[in-house]
Amino acid sequence: MAGYDYDLFVIGGGSGGVRAARRASSLGKRVAIAEEYRYGGTCVIRGCVPKKLFVYASQFSEAFEDAAGYGWTVGETRFDWPTLIANKDGEISRLEGLYRKGLDNAGATILDTRVTLRDAHTLHRQDTGETVSAETILIATGGRPNPFASMPGHELCITSDEAFHLETLPKAITIAGGGYIAVEFANIFNGLGVDVTLVQRGPKILSDFDEDLRDMLDGAMREKGIRLVYKNVLEKVERGEDGRLRAHTSGGEAIEADTVMLALGRTPNVENLGLEKAGVETARSGAICVDGFSKTNVDNIYAIGDVTDRLQLTPVAIHEAMCFVETVFRNNPTSPDHELVPTAVFSHPEIGTVGITEAKAAKDYAHVEVYRAEFRPMKHTLTGRNERMMMKIIVNGTDRTVLGVHLFGADAGELAQTIGIALKAGATKDDFDRTMAVHPTASEELVTMYAPSYVLRDGKRLDEAA
Amino acid sequence: MAGYDYDLFVIGGGSGGVRAARRASSLGKRVAIAEEYRYGGTCVIRGCVPKKLFVYASQFSEAFEDAAGYGWTVGETRFDWPTLIANKDGEISRLEGLYRKGLDNAGATILDTRVTLRDAHTLHRQDTGETVSAETILIATGGRPNPFASMPGHELCITSDEAFHLETLPKAITIAGGGYIAVEFANIFNGLGVDVTLVQRGPKILSDFDEDLRDMLDGAMREKGIRLVYKNVLEKVERGEDGRLRAHTSGGEAIEADTVMLALGRTPNVENLGLEKAGVETARSGAICVDGFSKTNVDNIYAIGDVTDRLQLTPVAIHEAMCFVETVFRNNPTSPDHELVPTAVFSHPEIGTVGITEAKAAKDYAHVEVYRAEFRPMKHTLTGRNERMMMKIIVNGTDRTVLGVHLFGADAGELAQTIGIALKAGATKDDFDRTMAVHPTASEELVTMYAPSYVLRDGKRLDEAA
Repeated sequence: MAGYDYDLFVIGGGSGGVRAARRASSLGKRVAIAEEYRYGGTCVIRGCVPKKLFVYASQFSEAFEDAAGYGWTVGETRFDWPTLIANKDGEISRLEGLYRKGLDNAGATILDTRVTLRDAHTLHRQDTGETVSAETILIATGGRPNPFASMPGHELCITSDEAFHLETLPKAITIAGGGYIAVEFANIFNGLGVDVTLVQRGPKILSDFDEDLRDMLDGAMREKGIRLVYKNVLEKVERGEDGRLRAHTSGGEAIEADTVMLALGRTPNVENLGLEKAGVETARSGAICVDGFSKTNVDNIYAIGDVTDRLQLTPVAIHEAMCFVETVFRNNPTSPDHELVPTAVFSHPEIGTVGITEAKAAKDYAHVEVYRAEFRPMKHTLTGRNERMMMKIIVNGTDRTVLGVHLFGADAGELAQTIGIALKAGATKDDFDRTMAVHPTASEELVTMYAPSYVLRDGKRLDEAA
Repeated sequence: MAGYDYDLFVIGGGSGGVRAARRASSLGKRVAIAEEYRYGGTCVIRGCVPKKLFVYASQFSEAFEDAAGYGWTVGETRFDWPTLIANKDGEISRLEGLYRKGLDNAGATILDTRVTLRDAHTLHRQDTGETVSAETILIATGGRPNPFASMPGHELCITSDEAFHLETLPKAITIAGGGYIAVEFANIFNGLGVDVTLVQRGPKILSDFDEDLRDMLDGAMREKGIRLVYKNVLEKVERGEDGRLRAHTSGGEAIEADTVMLALGRTPNVENLGLEKAGVETARSGAICVDGFSKTNVDNIYAIGDVTDRLQLTPVAIHEAMCFVETVFRNNPTSPDHELVPTAVFSHPEIGTVGITEAKAAKDYAHVEVYRAEFRPMKHTLTGRNERMMMKIIVNGTDRTVLGVHLFGADAGELAQTIGIALKAGATKDDFDRTMAVHPTASEELVTMYAPSYVLRDGKRLDEAA
């Protein structure tokens, strides 16, 4: 054991890897972490954080319009994309610095290089050519956007990675995909004044979400002027003589735009890592296979985060990192808990959700009560904006347990976080009912729905009198 | 019984009275309700609802400033108070119509008159001069701002009632009081560009709230340029020859302003109701005394809402109304539940709170853990605005129960509502810890504070290493 250079070597400086390295270091372990690009990973560098900053930027345009109903006159407004990019880049650099500082303070060795596995305990540094050894190795290399390499013209397109660094804001953009990344960018670009078309293979956006959420957001996006082209895929993208791109759909349409963005899923980063030399197995998707404790088939090699393709979410990777450290370095075997994970889609309006969908409840439970409220948020009574909010509670009619809560509207992500606590505490519908309202809020609707909107008996919907 | 004109007569058309009348009517009871002013009561007509609309109006000014960091240039902005008032009045009228319609649909008799009690079963209508009789009488007459009649010049001042109908927006306002109404209006007027001074008897605003909330809001209000004058009361207000008002403080200062607003508590509406003829007892505060089922000392007379001065909150009045109907008309004696009531202060930033303060926990529990996070919200990393957010969780160290959660920052009211559900479900700190974060949100801080910031042993603070 003492023969290894490190107790732990972490490959990948994203949220999961950094957390594991910090925690293990602070326990006194000898830890090294290697990152070939920038510390912070997808979340900080080209994911959650810059995305959310873009979302904030995109929301001002509606605020300017909404102000009129409240007595405000707003002069001409102008948006400058390079300013947003520069300010965003400044913030991202600051956060990257904090990540490095956190590692440094904890005593981890920070390497700025690609490393590859030579065997189960040996790593090769690309920068110096040296090899180092470690007792335990953690792979946390994350993922990247699927490049859709089979499509002619894919090289003319961008992915979310490039969207954060476009030199100019396009006048029109075509986005391929219907998952949360496609949807969030469609809303961002729309809010910044870009003409947006979204092309999706399926019949509706956000396939794994509750139908009500999908319908509400579909309607809101159309209301804002986003064009949604369903049951279509891009077959070819080409650049016209005018420099613009033409995206040809399977339906025979040629959609013109300045930019085509592909948001067609993400791929685990497993190539050229030396996995085969260490004997680490991957699934057909490319994801590294792990057991309930994030251990690969090789006894001393673990993997966490997006490269394992369990739930591709920053907090999940961090949680897996914490469980990994508990398991390996604190003699406290801890399985990551992937149940009742609340999530958000930072569309405009937002989606927040925790627990199972109505469709799944209908399948899994004999008696389901659905409480649903749809209303105009108070703010928009004076703006005149035709924006609706929707809140839905799925209840197991047999024991009154709340199985899922689905929210559409302002701050739905924040609310999903806090409702997630209630569900994790095993809240029943009676607990919701016993909670006093806070007036006037939107979320008070959640505690004032006394009668089911309808019930599902063996999956069949029966309407109830309210 | 059949000898009475009505099964239930409700005095007062506010939130509590209207709810009781509707519920009892929909159970088939013969119900009349009388209101001398406008249906909707304090909440709808001159409280929660118009206040929240003012809050929305007042928040745009910062949005215009904040936009710059996100790349927006905003032309000259102008605010027109009469437009806000007119649009607000339109919405209030619409809501008043809905209240009447709800009563009408339920089959209640709607009277637009003052009524007074002649005896325990008899009421006198001021409009027609008739008397009517009822088996059960519910008093829900609410309250009104304390006029501070002992102060010379009080007649030159306004209260919140008049603030909703000012003909012009003052350039400067002096607000007396430090409760949530004073604080909310101070923030509203500040956001609309008014020069605001708040004068309070006590040493700090919001005396019943957690100290951290008081300190955070104090700091934020000063940062916005609101002047806070503590340990002072107004002794006299007079109008100068220039038409402006001079408010003389106990500290010897004369504060000039166009408007002086008194927000010095509220008084139950019990005068000239005929309470003495019916034998209904009141407390020294004037509030009608009730038992655990909202029953007065007279067997068939009940009282709910602000006139009973339990918790002066709309949802509490509505809850008391529902319990009253259960108790009296459904043979299901139900006590209002006044425990763990979440509340908000719609200042800017907001306050949201549920459960007990740290000070009370220190008194009542031998072992208390305090988890506290203070941070700059992500939105303001690019705006440059020096706005902080604070979240604090008070935990019973003995059994890990969460005793209180105190929030300062955007949407704190919405979050207090949903955290209220978790606390009502008996959530422990472990439930908070087991909840996955939603990233990036502000509320994820609530589920990622793993180590106490400090602990209190027998009321004494001990700092802990994080």
